Amino acid sequence: MAPIPNGRALFAAIPKGFPIPGETIVYDATETIDLENVPLNGGFLIKVLALSIDPYLRGMLRPPEVSSYIPALTVGAPIVSAGVGVVLRSDLADVVVGSYILGSFPHKEYFVAPSLGGTARIRILERDPRLPLSTYIGVAGMPGETAYMGWREFSKAKKGEVVFVTTGAGPVGSMVIQIAKQDGLKVIASAGSDEKVQFMEDIGADVAFNYKTTEVRDVLSQEGPIDIYWDNVGGDTLDAAMEHANAFARFLECGQITGYSTGVQPMKNPMLMVNKSLTFNGFMVRNLRAKHTEGFLAEVVPKLADGTYKYTEDITRGLDKVGEVLLGVLKGANTGKAVVVVADE
Amino acid sequence: MAPIPNGRALFAAIPKGFPIPGETIVYDATETIDLENVPLNGGFLIKVLALSIDPYLRGMLRPPEVSSYIPALTVGAPIVSAGVGVVLRSDLADVVVGSYILGSFPHKEYFVAPSLGGTARIRILERDPRLPLSTYIGVAGMPGETAYMGWREFSKAKKGEVVFVTTGAGPVGSMVIQIAKQDGLKVIASAGSDEKVQFMEDIGADVAFNYKTTEVRDVLSQEGPIDIYWDNVGGDTLDAAMEHANAFARFLECGQITGYSTGVQPMKNPMLMVNKSLTFNGFMVRNLRAKHTEGFLAEVVPKLADGTYKYTEDITRGLDKVGEVLLGVLKGANTGKAVVVVADE
Repeated sequence: MAPIPNGRALFAAIPKGFPIPGETIVYDATETIDLENVPLNGGFLIKVLALSIDPYLRGMLRPPEVSSYIPALTVGAPIVSAGVGVVLRSDLADVVVGSYILGSFPHKEYFVAPSLGGTARIRILERDPRLPLSTYIGVAGMPGETAYMGWREFSKAKKGEVVFVTTGAGPVGSMVIQIAKQDGLKVIASAGSDEKVQFMEDIGADVAFNYKTTEVRDVLSQEGPIDIYWDNVGGDTLDAAMEHANAFARFLECGQITGYSTGVQPMKNPMLMVNKSLTFNGFMVRNLRAKHTEGFLAEVVPKLADGTYKYTEDITRGLDKVGEVLLGVLKGANTGKAVVVVADE
Repeated sequence: MAPIPNGRALFAAIPKGFPIPGETIVYDATETIDLENVPLNGGFLIKVLALSIDPYLRGMLRPPEVSSYIPALTVGAPIVSAGVGVVLRSDLADVVVGSYILGSFPHKEYFVAPSLGGTARIRILERDPRLPLSTYIGVAGMPGETAYMGWREFSKAKKGEVVFVTTGAGPVGSMVIQIAKQDGLKVIASAGSDEKVQFMEDIGADVAFNYKTTEVRDVLSQEGPIDIYWDNVGGDTLDAAMEHANAFARFLECGQITGYSTGVQPMKNPMLMVNKSLTFNGFMVRNLRAKHTEGFLAEVVPKLADGTYKYTEDITRGLDKVGEVLLGVLKGANTGKAVVVVADE
């Protein structure tokens, strides 16, 4: 068979603020691949089916000399994010053709993985047939793990307490809402559109509001004070949460998206940490997996499969859309987990 | 016996910035007391011997409508702080004349306590004869408890780690330094005079520096990164500690004195909490006593009594000096635990 184009989404230039589709992330179709003859060198050939687009990607689009918790991507090389694919050819006995594969994928239609494991955490997916493949890079994957593992490790949630969840319609926030409701808490949740507010109400949030049209401090004055704050946004919302926190409140610092593209915002009154005996835990899911994967598989995945836990996906077709989808995620335009479908199964 | 003057240090007016001796804290000698005949009403009469002057007092000199973790003092009434005294008369069978008493004391030469316990935590002192009475409002009292209990509860210290302690010559900081050294850590410590630097070196700090003449970021660049930060100061030093923290570092938020009189300072980059998986614990010693008093009495007090743990006291005589001493504490003028001695035993 002749070589065919192997489309790629490239990190073309370092963005100053928000990424610019076509400038900082560029689709390129000039590379080709011969699927039957490309050397595997002991590895296996993956056809990429779906790629996850998450806010943290913005942090990887930076100069390599700026240190962070995630490596900088290389300018000129493909974007890398969580992906799911299927094995077309394999040199490895334990990687059978037709297996589904999860891991950190380069944004290409096809690529050869050298082995299982590694820094890309390439692994075979044991799929629940009731769950769409895309959920394994969403609520049944890293974002769902983030919600469950962060909550179990740091929330110290007690029945009857009040939690405030930001980005409550996203894959992390929506899972936090549902796990918190299951734990018997009162849930206040915010997001940036009326459609998202509706979804947060549908999944059980006691108080759901659109932060673009409702003052967060008004809501927290009326419905708080809060015992737990799930932070995905930072900035002024974090300040408001601190002002309306009870003594001994726990702050789960999962992300601070408001600062990702436009520069970090200060915390106005850190003295409230002392005054109110607050606890803050910054965390990354990768450090929680050893302890909580078993619980996630036992508690969360079955509830997703049987419909107890609900989710939404915002699916876009085509690797050429990666830049636009990431921009949308950073601006809050997506409703539900943002996924780029590269090919059908 | 005729009534005698009962001197008092009064909270006369709410300070805008630093308290002003003679204006916001005023000594008053117009009240009198008849020591033999003042009615006890079932309580006991205390002769005040020494009073503790701590930074947190500034937070009590505020309008009552401003909420905080400690009650506002009443304008026109005496200052209140930790004190030690001796019983002159008693209606209570279990409070013997001559007993030493600890608790939250009004700043008066004499006062009648209605009972043991209560919000003032009035209690009989079981004194180690090797320790001066004043240490029971210092390193053997609340500040020492704060150091030990905060450290044991939140530091998660491991041998070989690096801790940065601020106000390292004060009663809290100096105890943190010595406990951390005993736990096998490398200790970096800061204070605001060369005399204090000398004391910090004497008690075992590996690196001691004067933050007024040495850049904290230079020291942390060279001697860090740090695994634990003991915060008594907040402000730019907290920012520097975050910049030079290792992943998974613990921040013990004991106080942020830089903001007490001149207004709170923001935290510049709270996103570092996420990027570095930092933990912040704001705390107050009163919430740790139930769990850690036994350990404090077993581990710390004997080491103070036998001279293993060292301390300094900065003693001023006379209730009329309370305003000046507090101002000195807030500006870092004292070396060692600030105590006002009201009368001799």
